[in-house]
Amino acid sequence: MAGEISSVQGGTVTSPKGFSAGATYAGIKTFAEDKMDLGLLASSTPCEVAGMFTTSTVRSPSVTINQERIATGGKFSGLVVNSGIANACVGEQGYFDAREAASQAAGHLGLQPEEVLVGSTGIIGVELPMALIREGLRQVQVGEDGGHNLARAIMTTDTFPKEGAVSFEHNGKSVTIGGIAKGSGMIHPNMATMLCYLTTDAEVDKGFLAAALKRAVDSSLNMLTVDGDSSTNDSVLLFANGEAGAGPIRAGSPAGDTFQDALTQLCVHLTRLLAQDGEGASRIMQVVVEGASSEADARAAAKTIASSNLVKSAVHGADPNWGRVMAALGRSGAAVSEEKVALYINDVCLVEDGRPIPFHRDAVVVLMKGDEVTFRVKLNLGEAQATAWGCSLSEEYVTINSAYTT
Amino acid sequence: MAGEISSVQGGTVTSPKGFSAGATYAGIKTFAEDKMDLGLLASSTPCEVAGMFTTSTVRSPSVTINQERIATGGKFSGLVVNSGIANACVGEQGYFDAREAASQAAGHLGLQPEEVLVGSTGIIGVELPMALIREGLRQVQVGEDGGHNLARAIMTTDTFPKEGAVSFEHNGKSVTIGGIAKGSGMIHPNMATMLCYLTTDAEVDKGFLAAALKRAVDSSLNMLTVDGDSSTNDSVLLFANGEAGAGPIRAGSPAGDTFQDALTQLCVHLTRLLAQDGEGASRIMQVVVEGASSEADARAAAKTIASSNLVKSAVHGADPNWGRVMAALGRSGAAVSEEKVALYINDVCLVEDGRPIPFHRDAVVVLMKGDEVTFRVKLNLGEAQATAWGCSLSEEYVTINSAYTT
Repeated sequence: MAGEISSVQGGTVTSPKGFSAGATYAGIKTFAEDKMDLGLLASSTPCEVAGMFTTSTVRSPSVTINQERIATGGKFSGLVVNSGIANACVGEQGYFDAREAASQAAGHLGLQPEEVLVGSTGIIGVELPMALIREGLRQVQVGEDGGHNLARAIMTTDTFPKEGAVSFEHNGKSVTIGGIAKGSGMIHPNMATMLCYLTTDAEVDKGFLAAALKRAVDSSLNMLTVDGDSSTNDSVLLFANGEAGAGPIRAGSPAGDTFQDALTQLCVHLTRLLAQDGEGASRIMQVVVEGASSEADARAAAKTIASSNLVKSAVHGADPNWGRVMAALGRSGAAVSEEKVALYINDVCLVEDGRPIPFHRDAVVVLMKGDEVTFRVKLNLGEAQATAWGCSLSEEYVTINSAYTT
Repeated sequence: MAGEISSVQGGTVTSPKGFSAGATYAGIKTFAEDKMDLGLLASSTPCEVAGMFTTSTVRSPSVTINQERIATGGKFSGLVVNSGIANACVGEQGYFDAREAASQAAGHLGLQPEEVLVGSTGIIGVELPMALIREGLRQVQVGEDGGHNLARAIMTTDTFPKEGAVSFEHNGKSVTIGGIAKGSGMIHPNMATMLCYLTTDAEVDKGFLAAALKRAVDSSLNMLTVDGDSSTNDSVLLFANGEAGAGPIRAGSPAGDTFQDALTQLCVHLTRLLAQDGEGASRIMQVVVEGASSEADARAAAKTIASSNLVKSAVHGADPNWGRVMAALGRSGAAVSEEKVALYINDVCLVEDGRPIPFHRDAVVVLMKGDEVTFRVKLNLGEAQATAWGCSLSEEYVTINSAYTT
């Protein structure tokens, strides 16, 4: 039913029609002077925007302002984002600064202040250096090739920029979705933030846009497990400007299904890049739980296993320590009948009917030394399934996070 | 209202009257041949017993059998416990083996099989070596000075035995509560088990015994955060034989309050020893949350902070990284008004009204280099409070847990 989706070579947030971006080094990120730390995204046509935000009760005013602005039902044409300082735990001043950043960006882009959204990531408890931001914004040139620089400007301890784009045909026109993301799980101390900005030239109404984003994020970024679930600044924004000229894409239509699949595919791509770049991570871990009684159970089991320090340490050591996976499964809260459980590492079965079966240990160790380890747990209770992503826990993670000073 | 409680010098599980214990090396723990791995606890008078058990859905038959036996309402005079193998994920055989261990122990102690409870901790997925257990039990001599050896026999990767006892006066007689415990949080891979055995010569009815145990464990062992919340074998048992001859101690009476306080005090003592012995831990961490809207909120906030890898890494590095504490607090699910939050490290205030205040960083670093770091979070929303314990996360933890092989 859903149409063919192809990934866009070198795709990024400016791959969809009508989007431009740019970035500069404004001097906010003192610990990484060669990197960019302030950027803009702009659309030549006002966009419908859907957003998903941290559930933390301690949240940056930059997050609250976006939530408020999106709730008004308006359209948006710009985004200003900085890295280095999170604009969190700074009291009322954080609201003034976030609003001023939006106003300054609007002035620079020729927009109204309320047409611009904001984003911040970095150290908690420090006010935004507004003089640097004002000055920096003057230097930002936005262009259709600026997506990659924007991806760089949102990095904190990320070791590489994360970006991608996918496209599909609708009414004979090419429709594109692009995106960039920065460090989630296993990330920098006071920078425990996941930012993801998505753009599309599809014409999608606000309701479907929000539903599609939630669905995509719930099976990708929200299944990336980490140090914890939610930081002060976590945000995902999806801008849709309709410039593909392919006509509206509606929920429940074949094109709607394709749009959903494409969006989810892109989000999974970005999620895997985030897992891969986990601090000190030697390899990525994928946990697939099948045959659960409910989707909630499948999700809980997959996330609990992927976030277990013991499982993560075993992945680091390429140790097929299936007992740790069983223990994490048991405490996940998911319905489990121990005597029905099967467990695979990559494609090798280690446990069947809840009991260990003989396996060639050395062969599994070799498998586990690859770039990616997959644990597949079959609960054999129902039809629901879920996938979670994580990464290994290494000595380097501890070193990075204990040596860091505020 | 509650009477004076004193700690018993060299106290252990055999400090209360009428309890004896003993242990041997039966050859179960192949990785530590100089240590004991099989032990017995016996009471000369049948005991009321209260128990608390892992909430994991993947649990050892040794746990299930105790739950079933205690639920029958009978009295108990013995306990047999082994370390090295957890008797978990071994199918139906696990039930047969646990029952046989109880029967063998009963024969050795001159008891009925159903008067004996069982305990196991160790590797998952391996059947108990019943021939070794049968032979080993013959060698165990129980005596009134055997508590310390029993404490040694339940150790897995613990570096020291954990024990203690407290006493108080009731009707002119001395009443004693003793206990031993082994490795909970940050513990050995396939041995992710916390065992705690408590004894008392108080005369306490079953209902109050169970209520007092739950209350004590909920504010001690259940507030010890770890790699996760619950393993396949976690168990706490409290044996009460009434041999102090001080008459019944009832819920709600002054003596009942003293009994509760003494039991909680002993459980907190054992909890702190467990935190101190966390794998690779350089120091213990205490998180006190005050002024919460509800006790559930206080508990959630304290446990979330104490289990954060980022907070634990900061404690390891003696880094006063308060932003990580705020971020953990925010995602804990507890009601928080950011602008009311105050945060202290030991007695130094770092955050007030939700905003950082100037502090002498070097002085706090020195404080954090001690054996114990206390984070005190004041939510200023209500009256509820809770304390959680944890320990630092070190490179050594990862090394231990990634190098280990099943």
